[in-house]
Amino acid sequence: MTISAPVSLIVLAAGQGTRMNSDLPKVLHRLGGAPLLHHALAAGRALDPARVVVVAGHGAEAVTKAARTFDADAEVVVQAEQLGTAHAVAQAAKVLDGEDGDAVVLYGDTPFITGETLEALLEARARHDVVVLGFQAADPGRYGRLIADGEDLHSIVEFKDATDEERAISLCNSGVVCADTHLLFDLVAMVENQNAAKEYYLTDIVGLARSRGLSAGVVVCDEAETLGINTRAELAAAEAAFQTRARATALQDGVTLTAPDTVFFALDTFIGRDAIIGPNVIFGPGVTIESGAEVLGFCHLEGCHISRGATIGPFARLRPGAELAEDVHVGNFVEIKNSVLDEGVKVGHLTYLGDAHVGEFTNIGAGTVTCNYDGVAKHRTEIGAHAFIGSDTMLVAPVTVGAGAMTASGSVITEDVPAEALALGRAKQVNKPGLATRMMESFRAAKAAAAKGN
Amino acid sequence: MTISAPVSLIVLAAGQGTRMNSDLPKVLHRLGGAPLLHHALAAGRALDPARVVVVAGHGAEAVTKAARTFDADAEVVVQAEQLGTAHAVAQAAKVLDGEDGDAVVLYGDTPFITGETLEALLEARARHDVVVLGFQAADPGRYGRLIADGEDLHSIVEFKDATDEERAISLCNSGVVCADTHLLFDLVAMVENQNAAKEYYLTDIVGLARSRGLSAGVVVCDEAETLGINTRAELAAAEAAFQTRARATALQDGVTLTAPDTVFFALDTFIGRDAIIGPNVIFGPGVTIESGAEVLGFCHLEGCHISRGATIGPFARLRPGAELAEDVHVGNFVEIKNSVLDEGVKVGHLTYLGDAHVGEFTNIGAGTVTCNYDGVAKHRTEIGAHAFIGSDTMLVAPVTVGAGAMTASGSVITEDVPAEALALGRAKQVNKPGLATRMMESFRAAKAAAAKGN
Amino acid sequence: MTISAPVSLIVLAAGQGTRMNSDLPKVLHRLGGAPLLHHALAAGRALDPARVVVVAGHGAEAVTKAARTFDADAEVVVQAEQLGTAHAVAQAAKVLDGEDGDAVVLYGDTPFITGETLEALLEARARHDVVVLGFQAADPGRYGRLIADGEDLHSIVEFKDATDEERAISLCNSGVVCADTHLLFDLVAMVENQNAAKEYYLTDIVGLARSRGLSAGVVVCDEAETLGINTRAELAAAEAAFQTRARATALQDGVTLTAPDTVFFALDTFIGRDAIIGPNVIFGPGVTIESGAEVLGFCHLEGCHISRGATIGPFARLRPGAELAEDVHVGNFVEIKNSVLDEGVKVGHLTYLGDAHVGEFTNIGAGTVTCNYDGVAKHRTEIGAHAFIGSDTMLVAPVTVGAGAMTASGSVITEDVPAEALALGRAKQVNKPGLATRMMESFRAAKAAAAKGN
Repeated sequence: MTISAPVSLIVLAAGQGTRMNSDLPKVLHRLGGAPLLHHALAAGRALDPARVVVVAGHGAEAVTKAARTFDADAEVVVQAEQLGTAHAVAQAAKVLDGEDGDAVVLYGDTPFITGETLEALLEARARHDVVVLGFQAADPGRYGRLIADGEDLHSIVEFKDATDEERAISLCNSGVVCADTHLLFDLVAMVENQNAAKEYYLTDIVGLARSRGLSAGVVVCDEAETLGINTRAELAAAEAAFQTRARATALQDGVTLTAPDTVFFALDTFIGRDAIIGPNVIFGPGVTIESGAEVLGFCHLEGCHISRGATIGPFARLRPGAELAEDVHVGNFVEIKNSVLDEGVKVGHLTYLGDAHVGEFTNIGAGTVTCNYDGVAKHRTEIGAHAFIGSDTMLVAPVTVGAGAMTASGSVITEDVPAEALALGRAKQVNKPGLATRMMESFRAAKAAAAKGN
Repeated sequence: MTISAPVSLIVLAAGQGTRMNSDLPKVLHRLGGAPLLHHALAAGRALDPARVVVVAGHGAEAVTKAARTFDADAEVVVQAEQLGTAHAVAQAAKVLDGEDGDAVVLYGDTPFITGETLEALLEARARHDVVVLGFQAADPGRYGRLIADGEDLHSIVEFKDATDEERAISLCNSGVVCADTHLLFDLVAMVENQNAAKEYYLTDIVGLARSRGLSAGVVVCDEAETLGINTRAELAAAEAAFQTRARATALQDGVTLTAPDTVFFALDTFIGRDAIIGPNVIFGPGVTIESGAEVLGFCHLEGCHISRGATIGPFARLRPGAELAEDVHVGNFVEIKNSVLDEGVKVGHLTYLGDAHVGEFTNIGAGTVTCNYDGVAKHRTEIGAHAFIGSDTMLVAPVTVGAGAMTASGSVITEDVPAEALALGRAKQVNKPGLATRMMESFRAAKAAAAKGN
Repeated sequence: MTISAPVSLIVLAAGQGTRMNSDLPKVLHRLGGAPLLHHALAAGRALDPARVVVVAGHGAEAVTKAARTFDADAEVVVQAEQLGTAHAVAQAAKVLDGEDGDAVVLYGDTPFITGETLEALLEARARHDVVVLGFQAADPGRYGRLIADGEDLHSIVEFKDATDEERAISLCNSGVVCADTHLLFDLVAMVENQNAAKEYYLTDIVGLARSRGLSAGVVVCDEAETLGINTRAELAAAEAAFQTRARATALQDGVTLTAPDTVFFALDTFIGRDAIIGPNVIFGPGVTIESGAEVLGFCHLEGCHISRGATIGPFARLRPGAELAEDVHVGNFVEIKNSVLDEGVKVGHLTYLGDAHVGEFTNIGAGTVTCNYDGVAKHRTEIGAHAFIGSDTMLVAPVTVGAGAMTASGSVITEDVPAEALALGRAKQVNKPGLATRMMESFRAAKAAAAKGN
């Protein structure tokens, strides 16, 4: 679809979410590793919006930060009092007033709307002045009903005002609307709060538009897309739905998931064909895995890239900035953070690599640690290609180990090691005959004396 | 409810549980991390019992130990032969004979009875001499039927003796009873074993009471409370039911569970509002977590306390006696046992702290170990505030590191370190030019020679 | 059952499995930790086959390797073009021509056939010349229908050729057949490909046999046994079915599984009665666990043996060749590979033991590493009984530590340690008063200067 005019996105995100029983603003609760708000913003990206306006209220500072994390250009307006959805949209006029093109209103607590649906909504604007997103409800319950004739929307009737005949209608209102930006603000300015809750309802703009002789349309999406989150149990159910979908998509894309139900995806996880993912793997945000890589069970990955032929885990943790080239092996109880591992590097066991670069085909022994923090600042470790880092080597950064160099196991490396050199930093072994036996005897005597003393 | 007279609790726990296919006595199989027996005893606590008597049989020694672990004052009587439930109750007379007040009979393999139900049972004693706990069975099957008129219980009819009309009744017998203690023992002494199994059935006391002109009543509880465990599959199903309930309760209490189905609670787990628990977290007994703490995926916690603002994991193990103050950070592949970590302590990677105290804002480097065991006894490590323990520091206990002190990475600390001092225990690094290359060549030559030798 | 004549097994394994969306040949996708092909071969073992012939095609080299891994004597013939099942069976004539006895045709992508079913198939050969395996389909869909009268099979009708009456039949064709080997090859040689797909169908041999006056029979098995794998979603569902069955079997066998749904079994996992398996345990191939051993949560086990009374985990990884004797304890963040641990050995924390033998009742301190790799070859570590390996000991293999010997924590052991001796390899501790404070001040100054420089 070609979008002719600039689009503005208005995302309502002011609610506290009382039923969440939480101090955290509702839209910041996480789904697939990302705040609910990010899901709505991600859907909106399909429209390539020229302006993105988030209407914040409760926890506005934290909501602003989260919005900017997703989209540095997002604008935030604050709705100090929550007086209803029309009132919330009206706040956006502070920054969008005079803006041309269409505006689409989304909800920060409705994470499953798809980009395709929003494109359909915008496309229907060619035929209607105001377009509302509806859905066929399996159980319409107390939703507002859409009185429509095909794509033509006559009115939205609140459940409590509906006749029995209207209540029998299963086409319901999602709350998502699209209209010309000028018109939208004109209409919301006319909305009144003459109702039991004394709230300004966005839905009222359909009636107002119709009374001005304008046309309204309805676009229908799958009910699952309109799912809103109001309680922690609903959030957990939404997470389960998100994961079920992500797992099915991965299987279709040719990823092997040994036990799909135990793998947790993030919103942006990307995994190539014929990659193998074992049971109990958690993907935080920002993970990309190339075809044919293998992640064994019990791995926790976040903000990292794994190349073709690499094998990870079990029990590996990759943190943001871990970049693993082809055929890298990261084994058990290994943590990699903000480090680049070139082709064929092996880090088998019990190791922490942070703020490091390791050259190709270098072997990192068990128990190695990059001592990257001096108590005040972080420093980098540079290791060349084809090096051999002996077990239990402490690399006190900043430090460089040259290509083809070796460190003796148990060494503390505080100075640079030239290429091809062996670095040693350990005391010579001394055996004291019979002393083990005598020490154990004295320990036992001490324990017996202590027991007697009690 | 005010309980006027002292209450005695009699818990039947003598069975082997043949269908469990186990050497372990049935009541010692675990549910929510605790023996089944503890669940029954925990329910009984709602009555604040003056006396608690466990009737043990198979594995009496182990059952006694488990009973005492839960309640140091619990009394145990042994039923040498298992001749039926009335015979089991009769054994309790050995210690309760002459005791005033009411007695409540519970079952060690029936873990879901609630304290509220037991309170209702006791409360009904104000109106009846003997009170039986019943339930409306979805599928009454071969349960005994309660013939009742409202709360008045006329009789209990065994399934095999029941008429078609009686079998149509869905009100069934749970086996739980309450009566005046003197009366209970009088009645069980009158029970006979004239039946196919030659067993003395506790249910017979209702008929005996009625034949003496006494009244019997029925209190009805939810069927789920009366679930008994007879096979491992039933135990696994009970565990699933327990976890489902615990997860739902946590969500209602305002805890964020990213993937509730992967979190395992114990009977006594306590988690504050707005705490965040990631996927795949196992709580053993004795865990308390304050509001706003975060536990990432793949953590195993037992007998520990986590304060507000602390972050744990992924891949952390907290063992009994781990006490984490506010804003403590425990990272991956870290084990903490019997140690107090003051505010703001950071233990990021690959560390074992046992029998230690760490002062506030101290940083513990990767690969640190408290060497708390000398082969005979355990010793303590004391680390002051604002200290910096370098990576791979061995703290050979008993040992003290003063406030603001530092240890150089790779050091073995065998003597106390004064405040603000730097402790070093490592050899100086020496680089041997070209030696890495020559060593690798000799290793390759040795391997080739060995291969040739084969 | 006594099998009188030698049996030949023919396993069809040539397909690519286009719908798997994978470069891996379909029969090499794993189920229960083993390639699908192994499951079919394992079922065939019930017949004690004299010859095993695998018909490979796509990825023939990899399929050959997998077949030989399971059965070193397996023969592989290549079907260069996939022209249908009869054509595939005909390829086996290259190696089986002239072979006496019966031949059974199985499918490499049908992993759930049981040995009992194959025995029943073979046993029916006493009464019929050709025997076909059928199943009552819950939803017969487009399966071929078996037109039979009791055990007598009249014909197989393809769905598209079936009358409405025939389509109403729910007895369907699994494709598995058994016949005298000579006869089988005679019949498949007569099959023609006059059909829409231009394929040679094995099912046609029933009609051909009947037209020669031979008898055909049908043996009926459970539909679940005939489940074939065509997509990754089906593979995941098959894995779930496999695990469900394995978990139920373990429970029946008297194994305690705290959370059965989180335990993953392999095809050959063996666990004794009253062993306890915590949540989130993954068994790779080749694991045997004796009665009464305990595996805590988050363990990853493969190719290892755990004896009675041993306790493992949480967070332990046992790799192939780990042999743990009675009462061994392996704790958290510990990896054991190709090592024998004698009775009562304790390895509590953060350790890697590879290519080692540890004598009875020896204690291995936290952070110990067997440095078994010199960059070229692997070497062995030998530790005697009742030894005490201090924390953070590096054992540079090949090396021997004698019985009753001790190593001081932080030592690098490069030379053998005699029995009862104490080995030390570490520098003496030096405390530098006030230096920690001065160093921190200089670090802060450096950081401030760097920030200013930016």
